[in-house]
Amino acid sequence: MTRDKDAAELHKMLKGKIEICSRIPSSKIFEDEATNKGILDLIYTPGVAYVAEQIFHDKELVYDYTSKWNNVAIVCDGTRVLGLGNVGPESALTVMEGKSILFKILGSINAYPLCIATQSKEEIIKFVKLIEPNFGAINIEDIESPKVLEIVEILQKEMSIPVFHDDQHGTAAITLAALINALKIVNKRIEKSKIIIAGAGSAGYGIFKVLYRAGFKEIIVVDKKGAIYKDREDLNNPISTNINNKDEIQKGTSTYINSFKTEIASKTNLENMSGSLENVIQNADVFIGTTGSGKILDVEMIKSMNNDPVVFALSNPNPEILPENAKSAGAKIIATGRSDYPNQINNAVVFPSIFRALLDLRIKNIDENILIAVAQSIADLVDPKHLKEDYIIPKINDPRILPIVTKSIKEYILSQGDNQ
Amino acid sequence: MTRDKDAAELHKMLKGKIEICSRIPSSKIFEDEATNKGILDLIYTPGVAYVAEQIFHDKELVYDYTSKWNNVAIVCDGTRVLGLGNVGPESALTVMEGKSILFKILGSINAYPLCIATQSKEEIIKFVKLIEPNFGAINIEDIESPKVLEIVEILQKEMSIPVFHDDQHGTAAITLAALINALKIVNKRIEKSKIIIAGAGSAGYGIFKVLYRAGFKEIIVVDKKGAIYKDREDLNNPISTNINNKDEIQKGTSTYINSFKTEIASKTNLENMSGSLENVIQNADVFIGTTGSGKILDVEMIKSMNNDPVVFALSNPNPEILPENAKSAGAKIIATGRSDYPNQINNAVVFPSIFRALLDLRIKNIDENILIAVAQSIADLVDPKHLKEDYIIPKINDPRILPIVTKSIKEYILSQGDNQ
Repeated sequence: MTRDKDAAELHKMLKGKIEICSRIPSSKIFEDEATNKGILDLIYTPGVAYVAEQIFHDKELVYDYTSKWNNVAIVCDGTRVLGLGNVGPESALTVMEGKSILFKILGSINAYPLCIATQSKEEIIKFVKLIEPNFGAINIEDIESPKVLEIVEILQKEMSIPVFHDDQHGTAAITLAALINALKIVNKRIEKSKIIIAGAGSAGYGIFKVLYRAGFKEIIVVDKKGAIYKDREDLNNPISTNINNKDEIQKGTSTYINSFKTEIASKTNLENMSGSLENVIQNADVFIGTTGSGKILDVEMIKSMNNDPVVFALSNPNPEILPENAKSAGAKIIATGRSDYPNQINNAVVFPSIFRALLDLRIKNIDENILIAVAQSIADLVDPKHLKEDYIIPKINDPRILPIVTKSIKEYILSQGDNQ
Repeated sequence: MTRDKDAAELHKMLKGKIEICSRIPSSKIFEDEATNKGILDLIYTPGVAYVAEQIFHDKELVYDYTSKWNNVAIVCDGTRVLGLGNVGPESALTVMEGKSILFKILGSINAYPLCIATQSKEEIIKFVKLIEPNFGAINIEDIESPKVLEIVEILQKEMSIPVFHDDQHGTAAITLAALINALKIVNKRIEKSKIIIAGAGSAGYGIFKVLYRAGFKEIIVVDKKGAIYKDREDLNNPISTNINNKDEIQKGTSTYINSFKTEIASKTNLENMSGSLENVIQNADVFIGTTGSGKILDVEMIKSMNNDPVVFALSNPNPEILPENAKSAGAKIIATGRSDYPNQINNAVVFPSIFRALLDLRIKNIDENILIAVAQSIADLVDPKHLKEDYIIPKINDPRILPIVTKSIKEYILSQGDNQ
């Protein structure tokens, strides 16, 4: 755990990993101490009044005269921070500062962490709407599911700037990219592969949506209650187990059905199988773990899978099975979310470049097709000559990612006509 | 107006005056491209998880491990931007980016502009409370009065970080600093000087509060209806003229008394004089204009003042009287808010250093005494040898301001015992 101590020491030394910088050097602003001439009168009162007035007359000018075009808000309520769970907005701030650095270094984007003191769905929605004038796009981050899925759905409808949910959209894009290349190695086809997704939170739901749209026909999603299927009781009878709104729980007025699981049930598991992961994983080609809880996949389960099993054990820091154990059980390709094993499936490979494209192209709607285009472009970055079991996706800082992702999104948008 | 065009050109070229910067160079993060080692695992997952967990166990550590200690939110609803009025949050953003630069260059502070899409008092209050985890202090800016005075009063009570209102508190401190030195030149004493404050918005109210606490005995505040006095009808009968909450106006439930004017009436204008500015300014020693509307003071009024009149015509960009006209009427000392005349009374002289002190000393309560201590320290920076009619306050970028203001606040706090 010395690396943990190193992290604490580094944070203590830095006292903040990001800062606000002036894009104009101080020497230009106060050029002449005696007269205070410089350009202070241009960047602040009185000169800025003219600029503000121009924006008042034509609101679109805010994209030309301010940093809005390049500003992203990272909004987090601290309820589902990494694998730590509900550790609060203060704890989340250090994670979001780290994320902001990746936004800047990999995407040249100003990402403002906004870790807020509420867990109420309605208050979070209201909050995000209020900050719209300042930002070119929103990133929703580390908020508990299914609350966050509802929040994102509503915001995408009601805001005029793009609302991206990295845990859902970013994870789905990078997972599909890795899966495309994994299937190449094991020589299987999308429409013939049976996929098990363990976990039906933001990541599990996002992966289901994108895989379904990408043409995967046989998907079964498993949550804590086992396989999700159409007749499962909790998907049909209002119960309060999944509710995240504490007010409603306290008031005892909760009558909650997780509509995202209902959607999963309607589009997956065509044979309507019930039972545990152990039951449904038999003869599966691919396992994708997004449970957050770790160590739910064992050697026997992998042995019951189809030939050349693909195992993506994505939970952090504890994957659903350790790579060495998956290997010994006969897994052909293994990926995790961790940097200390090969094939790290990390959102950071895609989110900076997706946001760069959203901002530059002023795209409003992030749909599964965009994520599929991104996934395909990332998968293509791995040259067939180099593609092998422990190299299925590029590294986070591969300099080819930014241009190729922007290009793929641009081409997709052009092929669709006007998406704005 | 070529300077206006220059401002627009500069803004168009910059496309944003501020940016978010990483405090760690990219080369350190991804030190070795082949292995991705570097310190990414310390600043982001998995290393950051340990840091987040430490903060969860001891919330105070957010001040050590993140930038919270040095973050200020500039919150604005765009209802009273400079002299432009209600031009909206997008227009306000360019002003707040300029302000953020001054925060950084003069106070080494990260100031995040947050220009929000609501004008509701309740929603603004809620918004500011939600962002508390992220920030070490709040600056409320360019929100219309009296709504903003109520917002600030409530937030100061209900938040655990300092809430500063530059239009009120900053203006009051720098005005008192200038006034202290002006009175030295005309050789008049605080307790014997008659002060007229024109305008009873944020600035007028703030100046009244500080001058009253500093020992000025004879103050009369004038608003659009004339002198504020105890028996004035609108201060006693609920009417809707001053209400800023559009919902209430629409609902027809408005029963509003401006309590800030009631407070002014109770502590000023001891002879309970009514009438216009023209009536009450006779025999005054000092005129302070904060009307926002400009050109309400004429030559005859100045001539009716006491000997050696002091005229602070602070409205921007149109002062209550042009300095050349005030001069011709016999004003002895003239100050404005503009940079193209001598004696510019500008908040920027004080707000960066006051915030530096609030953040460093973790001061919760900004009261009039702190502002008086700051004003005295700023006034003292003008060496008696150099003090003259057109040099009563230091320049914005005088490097002596930051240390002297911090010192004065620290000494005041120590003299009071525990203020935290």
